[in-house]
Amino acid sequence: MHNEIPTSRPLTPLLDSIDSPADLRLLSEKQLPDLAEELRAFLLFSVGQTGGHFGAGLGVVELTIALHYIYQTPEDRLVWDVGHQTYPHKILTSRRERMNTIRQGNGLSGFPKREESAYDTFGVGHSSTSISAAQGMAIGARMAGADRKVAAIIGDGAMTAGMAFEALNHAAHTETDMLVILNDNNMSISPNVGGLSTYLSKIWASKFYNSLREGSKQVLGKIPPAWEFARRTEEHFKGFMSPGTLFEEMGFNYVGPINGHDLGDLVRCLRSLRDIKGPKLLHIITQKGKGFEPAELDPVGYHALNKIEPKKAAIGAVNAPKKPKYQDVFGQWLCDMAKADSKLVGITPAMCEGSGMVEFATQYPDRFYDVAIAEQHAVTLAAGMACEGQKPVVAIYSTFLQRAYDQLVHDVALQNLDVTFAIDRAGLVGEDGPTHAGSFDISYLRCIPNMVIAAPSDENECRQLLYTAYQYPGPAAVRYPRGTGAGVTIDQSMKALPIGKGELRREGKSIALLCFGTLLANAQIAADNLNASVCDMRFVKPLDTELIKKMAAHHDLLVTLEENAIAGGAGSAVTEYLHSLGLNLPVLQLGFADEFVDHDSQKQQLAKQGLDPASIESQIRERLAHLQSLKPLAAS
Amino acid sequence: MHNEIPTSRPLTPLLDSIDSPADLRLLSEKQLPDLAEELRAFLLFSVGQTGGHFGAGLGVVELTIALHYIYQTPEDRLVWDVGHQTYPHKILTSRRERMNTIRQGNGLSGFPKREESAYDTFGVGHSSTSISAAQGMAIGARMAGADRKVAAIIGDGAMTAGMAFEALNHAAHTETDMLVILNDNNMSISPNVGGLSTYLSKIWASKFYNSLREGSKQVLGKIPPAWEFARRTEEHFKGFMSPGTLFEEMGFNYVGPINGHDLGDLVRCLRSLRDIKGPKLLHIITQKGKGFEPAELDPVGYHALNKIEPKKAAIGAVNAPKKPKYQDVFGQWLCDMAKADSKLVGITPAMCEGSGMVEFATQYPDRFYDVAIAEQHAVTLAAGMACEGQKPVVAIYSTFLQRAYDQLVHDVALQNLDVTFAIDRAGLVGEDGPTHAGSFDISYLRCIPNMVIAAPSDENECRQLLYTAYQYPGPAAVRYPRGTGAGVTIDQSMKALPIGKGELRREGKSIALLCFGTLLANAQIAADNLNASVCDMRFVKPLDTELIKKMAAHHDLLVTLEENAIAGGAGSAVTEYLHSLGLNLPVLQLGFADEFVDHDSQKQQLAKQGLDPASIESQIRERLAHLQSLKPLAAS
Repeated sequence: MHNEIPTSRPLTPLLDSIDSPADLRLLSEKQLPDLAEELRAFLLFSVGQTGGHFGAGLGVVELTIALHYIYQTPEDRLVWDVGHQTYPHKILTSRRERMNTIRQGNGLSGFPKREESAYDTFGVGHSSTSISAAQGMAIGARMAGADRKVAAIIGDGAMTAGMAFEALNHAAHTETDMLVILNDNNMSISPNVGGLSTYLSKIWASKFYNSLREGSKQVLGKIPPAWEFARRTEEHFKGFMSPGTLFEEMGFNYVGPINGHDLGDLVRCLRSLRDIKGPKLLHIITQKGKGFEPAELDPVGYHALNKIEPKKAAIGAVNAPKKPKYQDVFGQWLCDMAKADSKLVGITPAMCEGSGMVEFATQYPDRFYDVAIAEQHAVTLAAGMACEGQKPVVAIYSTFLQRAYDQLVHDVALQNLDVTFAIDRAGLVGEDGPTHAGSFDISYLRCIPNMVIAAPSDENECRQLLYTAYQYPGPAAVRYPRGTGAGVTIDQSMKALPIGKGELRREGKSIALLCFGTLLANAQIAADNLNASVCDMRFVKPLDTELIKKMAAHHDLLVTLEENAIAGGAGSAVTEYLHSLGLNLPVLQLGFADEFVDHDSQKQQLAKQGLDPASIESQIRERLAHLQSLKPLAAS
Repeated sequence: MHNEIPTSRPLTPLLDSIDSPADLRLLSEKQLPDLAEELRAFLLFSVGQTGGHFGAGLGVVELTIALHYIYQTPEDRLVWDVGHQTYPHKILTSRRERMNTIRQGNGLSGFPKREESAYDTFGVGHSSTSISAAQGMAIGARMAGADRKVAAIIGDGAMTAGMAFEALNHAAHTETDMLVILNDNNMSISPNVGGLSTYLSKIWASKFYNSLREGSKQVLGKIPPAWEFARRTEEHFKGFMSPGTLFEEMGFNYVGPINGHDLGDLVRCLRSLRDIKGPKLLHIITQKGKGFEPAELDPVGYHALNKIEPKKAAIGAVNAPKKPKYQDVFGQWLCDMAKADSKLVGITPAMCEGSGMVEFATQYPDRFYDVAIAEQHAVTLAAGMACEGQKPVVAIYSTFLQRAYDQLVHDVALQNLDVTFAIDRAGLVGEDGPTHAGSFDISYLRCIPNMVIAAPSDENECRQLLYTAYQYPGPAAVRYPRGTGAGVTIDQSMKALPIGKGELRREGKSIALLCFGTLLANAQIAADNLNASVCDMRFVKPLDTELIKKMAAHHDLLVTLEENAIAGGAGSAVTEYLHSLGLNLPVLQLGFADEFVDHDSQKQQLAKQGLDPASIESQIRERLAHLQSLKPLAAS
């Protein structure tokens, strides 16, 4: 058991000998526990150096070894659900010496990535996709006449998402040859909730755990019907509980639960299961953060880790005033709003901590709904509440709202119901990379009738716009980025800002910057150098058409700025409006290019997209030069 | 049993006396079967007059009566899943005499609609939303201190969708007071598939059906633990099958299955269940099309009905050459493509008939996957197949693709996988109204990097663009509308069109119409009157930038045309491109205004959106006049 993160590289002779899983498969079974010990120590050291996801990887050290030991990877396919558990997998698959680059620009991704390695069969950042993908691969293998095996490894938290159920349901029907490993740590990112969780806990806590485990081992052999009869009868009398009934009823061959940290059990089980036909489910019990005491005691806190900074830097940081993250601004507003209005209900799909809702959940447990990883349900649940006059606030990351897009359109917007969406992680998110970036929400929300969409420019405006959206008696979204803002003073009082009204922040000449969101700070720097006007537009929808008309009338070039794809974004809302008036004005639309943005620091990502102050300025100067070059042509 | 649709209004004295459910509740239980008989006769007559959904309503005649008899509607809340089963509900809730307007402009909606009636608690067009919404209402009632009851009525087909599972899972956890009625007709629109279906069939087919039914009745009383023990033991020995195990394991109080056409059973069950606390599930067995023999024999064919046309018109129609629907063009292409390429796999989320895949499913059963109502799974399953080099084609309605938006972004586009999307019902869909309209796909797809998006202008181009998209080795979508097209000759050979290239169809002056999709026909009529140029753009993404530049250089006004929201649509793709070049040209963007479009005939809907030939022409003339009025001002 480790108590501290090692700061110097541990000795790992066995691990060092493994350049690929083929080397691993040369080891004897007896050597595997030692390898697990080394792998865990190396993982602790390496995440300590780089920061990154942590608890999940520690929990699957043994499973990862056993899988690569038994399965002929990469020919056999392993599909890891929610890829932040794949650090041990990366270490064992030829990437050990590049672990020090993880989540950094041009370094390894924090998630599986097909481009990165043949062992990364499927990119997974969002949860609950693995069973579908693995089933597709298994069908593909069958069609191609390949004998390869496919296994999906999914956590109990991810299992609550509807799409995992859809996939189980379909896999059972098609009798696909595939193994689903249910990695049950009774914990996804937040402790998960729901009937399934209760169900799994019941199995886990069962006093028959051990006897069933024995039973499971025997199931792997050929079972004579009479013995099977006896086994079921026995279970029945022991407590009316057949572990895995739920999965067996769906048509899966269920085995488990077994101890996911016992390499002997794992290897034996996997070896037997690899050759059994049809859909199989192996239920293993693991502990998140396994082998690192602080993480075992606080698995939520140790979901991910910042890198260990040298002491000096840490001391310097202490003296700087701490700026709140946008998620904290939301969390504080939610508590204040809940205090003021007893009709407020807070809903999160398993992102209580990340969305800054811990304090609200503590203060208002009766009005807090963590629905587990179930974005679709979260949104329609809110719609139902709104029908009864409650005031639901759905806190959700931009990228995860994509999971509930239809529910937002069909259940909320079409019925014009009073639901407030607090959309966190809008824009680029840094080290998590493209799977977690919120690059599209302005585009995919703006086309939906009835929506109000606000994009605050700083922390205080975020608070006031949350209040404004909440007061608005229809569907309204406030989008704000990951991390901290400019550090402005936050007004504790709350006042509704006029819907669809922006604000002129700087009066300049020739050029007007229309900013949607927190890029306003960068815009202002550029504008100072250009003597440009700057508007804080505040609302993507409805647009402040008066302000746009005014800017159009008194400037030669409009520049729109947003942390969203240019395609269909707020800039296009502006041009749609101008064109609807028959106004033909040069507009420079700044935002994300038509590409997925690789992981890097948020600052670097923005710079590469041309959204830092210098790039904004240079792009405007370039456009001005271009426009001036056109003038003589137009006159000729 | 009816064998024909009555063409004259049947005598329904009992039904005529019911102006609202309050009247229904004055009847004695003994009168209910007679009422059911009348209601069924009236329903047959009324749908015969208007056309509309059919089989589902016939199946829930008794359930609808029993629910309104026991539940104090509208104070108690009934949430009907997939609203096409609500015709009997509409008839009983003060809308009997307006049933002759159903699905017509300004008439009743074919689905529940909150604006239409206090009895329509939740608008439902897409399936599987009812449990979430009902749970939200139940929580809302609890918060408001109201004693009202909430029941969701959901079919077994809708139960396969992930969001229904998410809701069950969460409802069990929160111990919400609500009743879920599982209306099990072993059939959604297509026969449904999957482990759950097998599971339900097992329950249904059980030889213990009757004894269990008896058991269920007794369960409704207070059950002493010992009796409950005995019941479970008995079931166990009878066949290891506890009906509802799956639901009970999740935490629901399961009752059933009972005969959903037995009013006595229904009323007794509902009366008891209404007062039991916590989450409950009542499993009823019904027959789709019940009481109308042709529909009982062919429930898929009788899902919906066209209105009974006078004989003369029918004879006239026979002589006209029959134009294929776009779904048939797709279906034929799919068969031809599958013949040419053994790697092709066809996937549908329960829309085999509507998507025109019946022939393909028959010819290539091994390469046909109907995944049930499970859009999310459908898309990621395709992604998994593509990883293994298969060539999946996902056939999906535009509105239902909203359900798999995240999977398209995260699993397909981000990994640039070779999946072809055949997007049917893109644009306005007529009588089904806004829940089924495909008004947003261009906007929500266009912002996603790596996507190729094609919008064919006629049937032949549809076939060729499907072929083109299929040949393209990355994610590509072809969107086409509901119904028939211009009736052009379809070239049986298949050739790939150049990606991102459109075609100049008419060379005119001053004005250039850039058409994305089947509005081309209307554009051409307008263009003839205006002597305008017309381009068939073919691709929304990538744009034919050369063609746009050429049009921009030689015309004074560009007009973009699309059957999609203007907000973020193809027109904005054009203006984004022009602005990126620093070109400032008047552009008139024609498409859908920022509003949900009510049900009506497709033709009427298009006209109201200004997209019929006359409106297109008049809007262009108006814009020209406006531009001319600006010129002197600009010169001054």
